[in-house]
Amino acid sequence: MHDLQGPYLLFLGHEDNPLAIKTSRGIAQWRPEICIGEHGNPLTLGLPKMRPEEAAQHGAKTFVLGLTNTTGDIPENWQQDILEAIDAGMDVANGLHQRLSDVEEIRKAAETKGTALHDIRHQFGSVPIGTGVARSGKRILTVGTDCSVGKMYTALAVEKDMTAGGFNVDFRATGQTGILIAGTGIPVDAVISDYIAGSVEHLCPAAAENHWDVIEGQGSLFNPAYAGVSLGLLHGAQADVLIMCHEAGRKEIKDKPGYPVPDLQDCIDTNLKMARLTNPRVRLGAISLNCRLVGPEKADTLCAELEERFAAPCFDPMIHGAAKFVDELACPAA
Amino acid sequence: MHDLQGPYLLFLGHEDNPLAIKTSRGIAQWRPEICIGEHGNPLTLGLPKMRPEEAAQHGAKTFVLGLTNTTGDIPENWQQDILEAIDAGMDVANGLHQRLSDVEEIRKAAETKGTALHDIRHQFGSVPIGTGVARSGKRILTVGTDCSVGKMYTALAVEKDMTAGGFNVDFRATGQTGILIAGTGIPVDAVISDYIAGSVEHLCPAAAENHWDVIEGQGSLFNPAYAGVSLGLLHGAQADVLIMCHEAGRKEIKDKPGYPVPDLQDCIDTNLKMARLTNPRVRLGAISLNCRLVGPEKADTLCAELEERFAAPCFDPMIHGAAKFVDELACPAA
Repeated sequence: MHDLQGPYLLFLGHEDNPLAIKTSRGIAQWRPEICIGEHGNPLTLGLPKMRPEEAAQHGAKTFVLGLTNTTGDIPENWQQDILEAIDAGMDVANGLHQRLSDVEEIRKAAETKGTALHDIRHQFGSVPIGTGVARSGKRILTVGTDCSVGKMYTALAVEKDMTAGGFNVDFRATGQTGILIAGTGIPVDAVISDYIAGSVEHLCPAAAENHWDVIEGQGSLFNPAYAGVSLGLLHGAQADVLIMCHEAGRKEIKDKPGYPVPDLQDCIDTNLKMARLTNPRVRLGAISLNCRLVGPEKADTLCAELEERFAAPCFDPMIHGAAKFVDELACPAA
Repeated sequence: MHDLQGPYLLFLGHEDNPLAIKTSRGIAQWRPEICIGEHGNPLTLGLPKMRPEEAAQHGAKTFVLGLTNTTGDIPENWQQDILEAIDAGMDVANGLHQRLSDVEEIRKAAETKGTALHDIRHQFGSVPIGTGVARSGKRILTVGTDCSVGKMYTALAVEKDMTAGGFNVDFRATGQTGILIAGTGIPVDAVISDYIAGSVEHLCPAAAENHWDVIEGQGSLFNPAYAGVSLGLLHGAQADVLIMCHEAGRKEIKDKPGYPVPDLQDCIDTNLKMARLTNPRVRLGAISLNCRLVGPEKADTLCAELEERFAAPCFDPMIHGAAKFVDELACPAA
């Protein structure tokens, strides 16, 4: 697994599309303490603007390409920035499809300088075949009615409130942004399919009985492209608690016209049924309701309705945080 | 995708473990017309023994390493045989983990001679992300209560009887042995996990309305290591008909102590429920009952019981063939 060294200098590229720096924005939000600056123009996250050399003098260890683009390639006009960071002695972390090590100038510079190139989507060491053997410790997994409903955000919000509540807890990242935020993890959707469950067993191994892993889920059992990843993740996680993530107002599965978002009851029942294979004690712990589309003013009413219907805490993590769930975890209702 | 050229010369290695040549045995059973000989000692499949040069003179186009071993590496004492085949102008097909192209002498010899090296587990071209878009044509998928219950064998038996019955039909291979038998296919368990469903959509594309694909299933929704592969395959297949494969007398999931084989009703219901996501018209077409453990003398009684219980034809393909199912497919009962 990767082990990225903080502090980070976040690279924002040279374009003006704010969606492209979503990953950097996530890192700055969830790990502000390790983000000492940003580099690139014209976009900004409000961090101090620093060139790599200056950032290195301030202690920055890793230059993070917290960007996405449609091709997945490393654009030519980033190479000078990357080479500058390597020259300043920094490691480089990359979540794009193209490998840093496939760009000859970058590979040579890193070899010469002795700095590390972290291609998040590619290098994560060897992972085992799943065993299904029960593990000690407790695990929470965020699952969803679809992709991009807030599974990573919810897991991070839960970790934050559990840490504040004195729990012994770790966030376990399964996607690129999560890995850059946590500094470690396994991109489960990039693993060979025979190893999905095994990679998750490896990611969140047996632990002390009072230790909690909060695992970032991926996809949905009801997404016709990615459900295999979601099921392998569900089996490998052996979760004690599932948090169902849903976007209020979404009608169709993302990029899959004609596929309706599943009924919430059916989605919860199906996830619990499939999860019971590797942990018969699994239960629904909460519903995380993303109210972006319907507007925050409706959040309280909608959450109250779902709490009534499913007898479980319901919250929008961006509006309410996850305290409602964490409080009940600490002191379960009779 | 691979496109292996027949006829084949089957390589049986130099060991005396009959289990190691299971793949070659499968090829000789299901595609006798393309197996012109065998090479290696002391094991035999009863085919004419031929050295590569002689086989090439008889028209053999591909030297097939239809063997497995525990390490997945190409043993040193096979290299001379492989080089001899290349020297005779034959392609080489390999289902082991190690790539032929990673053995320098073999790679160089093939380059010099201009022959192809088919590493079945590795090269299958780029595969797309699943779309879930409904496809024309009809598809049958073999699913199972576990691994190694007869999903490939059943699919091949069904293809054989459908061909005999005048159907327009193709067997679609998803594992190494199946690919060597069919001469083409995609090893679904070796695909990056994000692409499982997409690779199966690619493997059995839209076809004429009277065309049938018989797709080889993998794993089981109830196997804690491999269920992700099985679910992606189920979604990508968009099967009209499922055939549930089961081994009578098996108590536990293979290599997973403590995991009981699922209840047949539950396994059928769960497969149908999950399959409906991409094809709402999916139905159970038959049960394939592997009677190896309980003995062939019990097959008729056990099959009759399951036919009564599930109102679907039940057969052991090794004992009965698949005619019972195929007859009903041609002339469904009122």
